[in-house]
Amino acid sequence: MSQPTPIPETFRAIDVIRKKRDALELSRSEIEALVNAYTRGDIPDYQVSAWLMAVVLRGMTRAETAALTDAMLRSGEVLDLSALPARKVDKHSTGGVGDKTSLVLAPLVAAAGIAVPMISGRGLGHTGGTLDKLEAIPGFNVNLSVVEFRRVLETCGCAMIGQTAEITPADRKLYALRDVTGTVESPYLICASIMSKKLAEGIDALVLDVKTGSGAFMKKEQDAVFLAELMVETGERMGKQVVALITDMDQPLGNMIGSALEVVEVVDILRGGDPQDLRELCLELAAWMLQLGGAAETVSEGKQQSARLIRSGAALEKFRQMIELQGGDPHVIDDASHLPQAQHTMKVISARAGYVAAMQCEQIGTACVILGGGRECKEDAVDPSVGIVLHKKVGDRVVIGEPLATIYYNAEAKAQRARQLIEASCQIADAPPSVKRPLIHQVIGKSGEKR
Amino acid sequence: MSQPTPIPETFRAIDVIRKKRDALELSRSEIEALVNAYTRGDIPDYQVSAWLMAVVLRGMTRAETAALTDAMLRSGEVLDLSALPARKVDKHSTGGVGDKTSLVLAPLVAAAGIAVPMISGRGLGHTGGTLDKLEAIPGFNVNLSVVEFRRVLETCGCAMIGQTAEITPADRKLYALRDVTGTVESPYLICASIMSKKLAEGIDALVLDVKTGSGAFMKKEQDAVFLAELMVETGERMGKQVVALITDMDQPLGNMIGSALEVVEVVDILRGGDPQDLRELCLELAAWMLQLGGAAETVSEGKQQSARLIRSGAALEKFRQMIELQGGDPHVIDDASHLPQAQHTMKVISARAGYVAAMQCEQIGTACVILGGGRECKEDAVDPSVGIVLHKKVGDRVVIGEPLATIYYNAEAKAQRARQLIEASCQIADAPPSVKRPLIHQVIGKSGEKR
Repeated sequence: MSQPTPIPETFRAIDVIRKKRDALELSRSEIEALVNAYTRGDIPDYQVSAWLMAVVLRGMTRAETAALTDAMLRSGEVLDLSALPARKVDKHSTGGVGDKTSLVLAPLVAAAGIAVPMISGRGLGHTGGTLDKLEAIPGFNVNLSVVEFRRVLETCGCAMIGQTAEITPADRKLYALRDVTGTVESPYLICASIMSKKLAEGIDALVLDVKTGSGAFMKKEQDAVFLAELMVETGERMGKQVVALITDMDQPLGNMIGSALEVVEVVDILRGGDPQDLRELCLELAAWMLQLGGAAETVSEGKQQSARLIRSGAALEKFRQMIELQGGDPHVIDDASHLPQAQHTMKVISARAGYVAAMQCEQIGTACVILGGGRECKEDAVDPSVGIVLHKKVGDRVVIGEPLATIYYNAEAKAQRARQLIEASCQIADAPPSVKRPLIHQVIGKSGEKR
Repeated sequence: MSQPTPIPETFRAIDVIRKKRDALELSRSEIEALVNAYTRGDIPDYQVSAWLMAVVLRGMTRAETAALTDAMLRSGEVLDLSALPARKVDKHSTGGVGDKTSLVLAPLVAAAGIAVPMISGRGLGHTGGTLDKLEAIPGFNVNLSVVEFRRVLETCGCAMIGQTAEITPADRKLYALRDVTGTVESPYLICASIMSKKLAEGIDALVLDVKTGSGAFMKKEQDAVFLAELMVETGERMGKQVVALITDMDQPLGNMIGSALEVVEVVDILRGGDPQDLRELCLELAAWMLQLGGAAETVSEGKQQSARLIRSGAALEKFRQMIELQGGDPHVIDDASHLPQAQHTMKVISARAGYVAAMQCEQIGTACVILGGGRECKEDAVDPSVGIVLHKKVGDRVVIGEPLATIYYNAEAKAQRARQLIEASCQIADAPPSVKRPLIHQVIGKSGEKR
């Protein structure tokens, strides 16, 4: 662990607050002193929350954003994976509904000889979280120590855990404060939070999946692009290769939503199956990871290689190996009945004929939360068995009485509320939508030139 | 004491923070709930400081400002002086250097039959405070209970005290938080702080002395006008008559700075003496108080009446009476040697001939703080005996070797630093300044029409 720089004696939090309030640029040492002093408990929450609000409303320069990321990164342990000969590449998604690509990508990319040290989060609000999905696998332990994490990574090339106490303590403390002070919604703070955690993994390169659309945190593409550019530049300033894909979250990704159901869909993809949108996005993201990791010359070559690793069963075998190494029951791969099962199912029926014109994606995520499959507060427990399977996606034809979705539930009243929400969120029109939203809107980052 | 409105069960501080962050207008009930919940300790400092920073950077509408003032006002006791037959009028100044008008105005306006229930503050930074000046009078007690305050007011028509625990507790708590979170500098928050305290005095009308210039908090006239308009409108929305005078603070007011010295100058004015600028401003402010209090038809009539009350000795007698009633030694009026005396004096000599072109007024205030006559932190004690007497003001002719000022001091090293500061702050030019800044820049408020 690198020693944090001592806080200069002349440092006063009030001066840094006032400077940011007055839209002046903070120096690297001012930002570092603030982050270090706060992490140690030397300055109170009420000063930092005022500073955070000033950052939300005044913004930050690129240099300030990089300095903040760096200070947060160095507030704790930075994994040194240099003993691993393979290049280390990770992927991070800004979150969405049905977004289970991490579970596909870690084993798939590891199968290509690249190390994937993945530290993930839990679901909050309408979006799901990787850790919750992994925990649907009986016995799977996401709370490995750093030593165990390293061992799994060395053995099978990928490992997936949650944040540990040693890594970016500044982020944990700052995020908890942001959550209760209305200061979450700042691209600069979001960038520093994501990038500090990801770079603490000791990676060489990072692929960012920045979602946009009705189910994403950034509904507007321009906001997603702004954040993506910020993260790419911050990563590059810190000597990492970073590429960001702006991808669609205007409808759920794949057909299944809910922890256990999503594991089923992950296995389907790793077996070479559908759904097509999920498969396409996984191949694209894997291809970028392979290209940045040096396992493929170009992205299109990376895509072909990824498809081969699925066809050969190598990716699925890697998934099985990781599950076993992290204490999970690998039988879930061969028999989905080993996953938690909801007691009941209910069909959501279309009341009219036509085409699915749009889906209010956030509402579908919220329907899953209502079923118990997500959390409204950080303290909520997640029911891994419940969820939603979509039978129709945007553009699909539908006749009266045909099922739009199936709800997997354990409580009737919750299922009824979820059904109403899904019905309201599926917009049926006489004609299919004239413009089809692309799955991948754009690619951001210098490395994006080597397609 | 009016019962504060209960906090609605649906109230969440985070919603109010986000709304202000997003530049939306808060409702009266949202502001009331926030202030009440904070005063009771039901919401933490870190949420309120984030909200305060959002207010600093997003501003407030006039309705929000009035709602905040009202909520702060009703957080504690509001004096009910309706039993007093006289109309109740007060004056508030935004603070400056050598600004001792309160000590003149309270007895002068009381001598005209108007009740002046004055709750004042202490000096902070480069400006002096009324309470510190009063405490230069041996025995003078500014910490009267509300019952004692009322008795002095009933007996002599004026009383001067500090803030009590019962009055505007929300302001005390908010101000302490603003002080350490860089959220002092907001006209909306300044307005609510001043107006809530003043209206808690149970007054019918208020004259505001809003300073502008190098020794004022608002250096730019436009900022002073903005705050003045805000305070006048806020007072009017709350059913009070309010007038604001924008007055000059580009050089110290009068010639004496420092607690005991300023009491000497107050007595000089109440005896009908000079300095002319202080006398002029006191007569003007008193005239507005008399007009708003119904003791004079017009401001010019009020001015004549005020001059008569000084000439007759009635104002000075009122001052003597108030000092006695508040436990002070009235001999200070007849013999200044009863006031605290500095051990030494030192002349500040002009190194060149010409005219005083300008004074860096804040630096002269700071020179007094350095001598021990003011406070840098709220906890500092004030030495009432030290201070500065100016022999030259802006526009005055000066020859080489002539004294610009006399320093009254108790510590040589401090006096040397103060001397350097005074020398640097007095700008001597070959010609007098071509434009003379007026003492009164403008008058703001509907009542301003009845000059």
